Amino acid sequence: MATIETPKSQYGQIADLLISRIQDGTYPPGSSLPSEDKLADALKVSRVTINRAVGLLRLSGYVKVKRGSGTIVRTLPVILRDAKARYAARMQGTGAGEVEARQHNLVSNTVYRQIAEVPAPEHVAQTLDLKPGDPTLLRSRTLFANNEPTQIADSYIPAAIAKLSPELRNENAGPGGSYGRLSDIGHGPARFTEDVTVRMPTEQEQQILELEAAQPVFQIWHVAFDAKNKPVEVAKHVMPGHLWQLHYGWDE
Amino acid sequence: MATIETPKSQYGQIADLLISRIQDGTYPPGSSLPSEDKLADALKVSRVTINRAVGLLRLSGYVKVKRGSGTIVRTLPVILRDAKARYAARMQGTGAGEVEARQHNLVSNTVYRQIAEVPAPEHVAQTLDLKPGDPTLLRSRTLFANNEPTQIADSYIPAAIAKLSPELRNENAGPGGSYGRLSDIGHGPARFTEDVTVRMPTEQEQQILELEAAQPVFQIWHVAFDAKNKPVEVAKHVMPGHLWQLHYGWDE
Repeated sequence: MATIETPKSQYGQIADLLISRIQDGTYPPGSSLPSEDKLADALKVSRVTINRAVGLLRLSGYVKVKRGSGTIVRTLPVILRDAKARYAARMQGTGAGEVEARQHNLVSNTVYRQIAEVPAPEHVAQTLDLKPGDPTLLRSRTLFANNEPTQIADSYIPAAIAKLSPELRNENAGPGGSYGRLSDIGHGPARFTEDVTVRMPTEQEQQILELEAAQPVFQIWHVAFDAKNKPVEVAKHVMPGHLWQLHYGWDE
Repeated sequence: MATIETPKSQYGQIADLLISRIQDGTYPPGSSLPSEDKLADALKVSRVTINRAVGLLRLSGYVKVKRGSGTIVRTLPVILRDAKARYAARMQGTGAGEVEARQHNLVSNTVYRQIAEVPAPEHVAQTLDLKPGDPTLLRSRTLFANNEPTQIADSYIPAAIAKLSPELRNENAGPGGSYGRLSDIGHGPARFTEDVTVRMPTEQEQQILELEAAQPVFQIWHVAFDAKNKPVEVAKHVMPGHLWQLHYGWDE
């Protein structure tokens, strides 16, 4: 039984210093970091060390490189996603993304990329007790907070169920959203599961979520079951890892 | 409402090809990938493209570079961590790590790094309703599956509670582990919360978990509350992101 302590590398120490300056407001949200040359001079370390430290800050999402504006401090806070509360909110008629944005005084916005009947991808079919290729209604959207992309959400409902409520094909599916409509037709969600993994973003996700290739994303498969334990919706959420804190709770 | 499709880069396509070869057993777990020169020749792309593709596989945890043995295909499967089941298992006398390892026929092993009374770090104090620096019993350990490190778990119990059960200072705390001892003294866990974030590993975590600087880890703050809703234990779990799938479930 031994305690292991690793001495911190120089670039790690510089990264810590820059993060503490971001956190104490020396470099406020939306501002540009000083150039790497200036930082190297001021902190009396090599330009290579500064470059590695800033690289770590980019991977960790503290800063973002914008062409023409240099290295910008992130403006969004870490957003708390309370799994239970967000679905309760949906049933009460407030969008889940809206609830999350509001607690941080952010303005939420949803852009639908596609609403269409599509063949079920393999994992979706398996989860919904369908055969691969069976028809499902896909609702594919990107969520934004203060105009920054915060997640991609693609939800699939078996077409045999979805056709019972034509409003599910509208961007605004009405009071309570798609869960409200599933309730109307006797398939209201009663139980949920979520499976969370972390991975690197695909190139399409990098583009939509404004991420670099090495910035990890959360992938959440969310499944809603009705009172008869039939899976009625599965949604894939892809979210920049640095933007989110996922909260879960349960009794023994 | 527009569908966005991004054409895949050449290195992304090569990465997909190598991943499919890992998944179909062409490159089985524990084997070495062909050298980058050989891959470049065989796939008729530049060495730079191969290098970027293999870099993506390293970040994603499909392969690991071992000095002297080259680039090795990962041997561990993705391990399912069912939050509710693992704590039920602990109360029934089986280690949580053991339950997770068993479902994949892996051999689990726990190495304690430290069991000692320490001043509560700020976040721990806040979570346990203590003042920063108040004494807590720290149980710090590393979990392994088939001798590969799978997580760091540091749990803190308020010293005022921990001193009621001296067995909490033993590596083997007895039947049901530390939760069993908390039950003995009237503070058995009745409710749990978990908060999940993803971040880059510290240098110490890189060393213990055998990770590269840019390989993301899950950080889970797990809190146990007793029947009077008093927080009795908080644990920080740090886990290689590519090794785990986190499962949660709840009723409406």
